[in-house]
Amino acid sequence: MSKPKVFEKPTGVKDYLPHAVAKLRRIERNVLDCMHRWGYEQIMTPTIEYYDTVGVASATSDQKLFKLLNQKGTTIVLRSDMTAPIARVVGSLLKDKEFPLRLSYHANVFRAFEDKGGREAEFFQTGVELVGDASPEADAEVIALAIASLQAAGVPAFKIAIGHVGFLNGLFEETLPGRADEQEALKECLLQRDHVGYRDILRKLVISDSVREELEGILRLRGGQEVCSQALELSSNPDAKAAIRHLCEIWDNLTAYGVQEHVLIDLTMIGDFSYYTGMTFEGYASNLGFPVCSGGRYDNLLEQFGRKSPATGFALKTTRIMEVVEDGAEEGQRTLIAYAQERKMDAIRAATMRRANGEIVVTALVSEEELDSFVGMVNRPLTFKGVEYDQFVLVNGKEGQA
Amino acid sequence: MSKPKVFEKPTGVKDYLPHAVAKLRRIERNVLDCMHRWGYEQIMTPTIEYYDTVGVASATSDQKLFKLLNQKGTTIVLRSDMTAPIARVVGSLLKDKEFPLRLSYHANVFRAFEDKGGREAEFFQTGVELVGDASPEADAEVIALAIASLQAAGVPAFKIAIGHVGFLNGLFEETLPGRADEQEALKECLLQRDHVGYRDILRKLVISDSVREELEGILRLRGGQEVCSQALELSSNPDAKAAIRHLCEIWDNLTAYGVQEHVLIDLTMIGDFSYYTGMTFEGYASNLGFPVCSGGRYDNLLEQFGRKSPATGFALKTTRIMEVVEDGAEEGQRTLIAYAQERKMDAIRAATMRRANGEIVVTALVSEEELDSFVGMVNRPLTFKGVEYDQFVLVNGKEGQA
Repeated sequence: MSKPKVFEKPTGVKDYLPHAVAKLRRIERNVLDCMHRWGYEQIMTPTIEYYDTVGVASATSDQKLFKLLNQKGTTIVLRSDMTAPIARVVGSLLKDKEFPLRLSYHANVFRAFEDKGGREAEFFQTGVELVGDASPEADAEVIALAIASLQAAGVPAFKIAIGHVGFLNGLFEETLPGRADEQEALKECLLQRDHVGYRDILRKLVISDSVREELEGILRLRGGQEVCSQALELSSNPDAKAAIRHLCEIWDNLTAYGVQEHVLIDLTMIGDFSYYTGMTFEGYASNLGFPVCSGGRYDNLLEQFGRKSPATGFALKTTRIMEVVEDGAEEGQRTLIAYAQERKMDAIRAATMRRANGEIVVTALVSEEELDSFVGMVNRPLTFKGVEYDQFVLVNGKEGQA
Repeated sequence: MSKPKVFEKPTGVKDYLPHAVAKLRRIERNVLDCMHRWGYEQIMTPTIEYYDTVGVASATSDQKLFKLLNQKGTTIVLRSDMTAPIARVVGSLLKDKEFPLRLSYHANVFRAFEDKGGREAEFFQTGVELVGDASPEADAEVIALAIASLQAAGVPAFKIAIGHVGFLNGLFEETLPGRADEQEALKECLLQRDHVGYRDILRKLVISDSVREELEGILRLRGGQEVCSQALELSSNPDAKAAIRHLCEIWDNLTAYGVQEHVLIDLTMIGDFSYYTGMTFEGYASNLGFPVCSGGRYDNLLEQFGRKSPATGFALKTTRIMEVVEDGAEEGQRTLIAYAQERKMDAIRAATMRRANGEIVVTALVSEEELDSFVGMVNRPLTFKGVEYDQFVLVNGKEGQA
């Protein structure tokens, strides 16, 4: 194949210029500080993992894993999320640590894309895992922390939709027992939020009118706490009922956090990941067509790393959040100290003192002619060689100013 | 080949547990804040680059590049440093930005290792590039900033050795004209700091006694400013003399920064990277056998990305610096709020208020028996489920305390 051109980057990856980095770093810092105050401790894992260990265990579908071959012919993946690597660490380095474990992370993760449709192959996630606690209190803590994290990130308005995979699984098992293909087709419609397609399939199914009504009824199961009571009446399947009761308890806990305004129950929601085992949730910001965070309970993952235990967590889609967060003001005043050759020592000392006080200072050796042209602009904002400064200080041979 | 075991990671990469992450993040934050105060703005580039563009342009030797094959059979590299990617950005996205450009970064970089000798395949670097300024003032600024960065990182004691590739190139060209192999052999000894081997080669070379003396003399060219005058006398080659004069000017500038105690001139030093074109430097911490930072002038790189210009910079070897920096104290007080079921709302409200005040707070729903066993331990440090807390608050059904 032909060589890539000198400026070309692999498909789907990008450079972040200073303005974007400042924003990304501010979100990262504020969110990690928030998670820290909730007792979550940061962990870091390698960028690369073996496909056969962490790759296959991850929630990412196989064709979306970013696979590469190393020089020995072994398949390597660039990590697709942090949940599977953290499960690996909990089962190995942290295997003697008592539960519950509260872990947080900020990391770049990768996806392989067949097309060049502008989707990102490398992006940032900031999240937590709460491992070793199966209670509704743990699920509520994680949802409440997701809300606090979105607020810390500066997302102006958002809603968290909460569902439970146990409810839909129980309901479908009750109404369409053993009809796996038909269950799958209906779930796929819900996953795609395709309610028209869902009703189409229902219409064609050979089922009783009462079952059809029951299955249509779940499309209306979206709202506040009242949805829980409606759902309890809708299904008599014990798994579905247990799921709803767990969800009701999560709701009660969220009331204690005072975050009901940000939350709604949406029993039609199916997590993107087939490995979720309990409640799942997604966060949506106004004016943004894709989730800004997602999470849920995954009680089967840790077992694959030798330490069977319940776990719940979420990831903020940090790169996407940059699109809805306002730019922050730059911290600190930016000063240019322009100096004449013979006053270098004074200029550099002045710069050192100002930096010690937290100011941003750039020094520039300039010619006598330039110095002359600067007189009269001292202590005023100016642009010098393409950079804006709040203040301009002249250290020339004639005056003692610094 | 056999499958990797479930906990196995690719050779040379590692997990960082919370204690290590806290330290790494503190160093990262302090160093980036320092660079920010010197007017350097952060940039981020992708983890992966094409081998044929950034890979071949990088300073890393070909066999040390971390090469992988993507699904199309194209060779991808995991970036080996940030200098070549930044040069790519300066030549493309930033091509209309006026010089000088002051850019900083903190990034994980990768190396391929043949052996399993415990060397790291993924590690962190924090550094700057000052692009578009050929002056000794620029070189001195970068060295002074390296010193300020090592101090900000908390490195307790260190020395920066400064050399100049032009001096050795000029001296060898003068004394061994056209004898490339012999020049290479001598340079290789200097690179390995093998002075015995260097003298061995000198002894066997067919050269005049005066040339032998001159070539042996450079081993003594290590020290303060006096080395510059000695070096000026040693060689009459114009390139060597120009190099020394540039170095003298850098030294004068460093005097203005007041950092002479951290600096020594070492004219036997050869940068690891063949692409350096002027001064080079390395920082050594006490009790550590490898450099904690390295840098230098590389005036030929930018040309490969279509924007010919001088450039100088350095990278801190952040992962190594962790070994010489003391652990920091954890920020904020860590509190456990244990509560009875019926006081959940009070407990969670108390946690929210304390977090808003910057405290680290974990809540735990506990049984009546546990609550009873806790009485008398209130407001004292304790360990609960393997985590140490500075303070313990009880919210039970009997008292109103929070």
